Amino acid sequence: MEDCVFCKIIAGEIPSTKIYEDKHCFAFLNIKPVNVGHILIIPKKHFETIDEMNQEDFCNLNEEILRLSKGILKIADGLNVMQNNRLAAGQEISHVHFHLIPRYEKDGYKFNWLREEGVTEGENKEFLKKLKNLL
Amino acid sequence: MEDCVFCKIIAGEIPSTKIYEDKHCFAFLNIKPVNVGHILIIPKKHFETIDEMNQEDFCNLNEEILRLSKGILKIADGLNVMQNNRLAAGQEISHVHFHLIPRYEKDGYKFNWLREEGVTEGENKEFLKKLKNLL
Repeated sequence: MEDCVFCKIIAGEIPSTKIYEDKHCFAFLNIKPVNVGHILIIPKKHFETIDEMNQEDFCNLNEEILRLSKGILKIADGLNVMQNNRLAAGQEISHVHFHLIPRYEKDGYKFNWLREEGVTEGENKEFLKKLKNLL
Repeated sequence: MEDCVFCKIIAGEIPSTKIYEDKHCFAFLNIKPVNVGHILIIPKKHFETIDEMNQEDFCNLNEEILRLSKGILKIADGLNVMQNNRLAAGQEISHVHFHLIPRYEKDGYKFNWLREEGVTEGENKEFLKKLKNLL
């Protein structure tokens, strides 16, 4: 897609440190790494968010995610796999990408996710009702 | 596996709010939700971390992750998919689990991941050399 940074990286119009490429996906070093070896893996086809992908696209991408993860877990002490959809979830580039973030003992990163006000049973119930109607 | 909380949830020995179940996977509400509709999805077979899974196991699990994600993204404003491997990455239960965290505009969550000292090119180079030998 024109004007998509990741499509341009795939096309070689923007340089990147490529780690792996096949006909489905492209993996490269994040230029803003949060840790040593922070990799982004993306489908070659332009999808904004994972809900635009079909099962085959998703499985092809995950095949390489698993293969890279197996390698990373032989080098690092841990691994976070993370994928954000839409701005509300912190997605910065509108082309599906999975973060593979190697973790090291005492690297000092911590998630601080707990919502102060908690989540009520009623809120969860309402959500589940909607979700079950959609599945 | 004996003494695994998630294996016990699958077996019904520990109660949970089940969202979906098939022969490969089990999805349920996180009892410590960080947001409304925070779901955990796990393989029925006990694997500690994803590197123990084969491509078929992983693809089966991801099929349901995608299906649930499509539903969630019709309800919420965004979605984080997250999976942590080993204690160094914040994994608390030693049975592979993916977090599906619905996100809402202005829910106030933010990741704060940047390492103060940054990541040097040399560190990344060394990592990549090791990884390429493993792939």
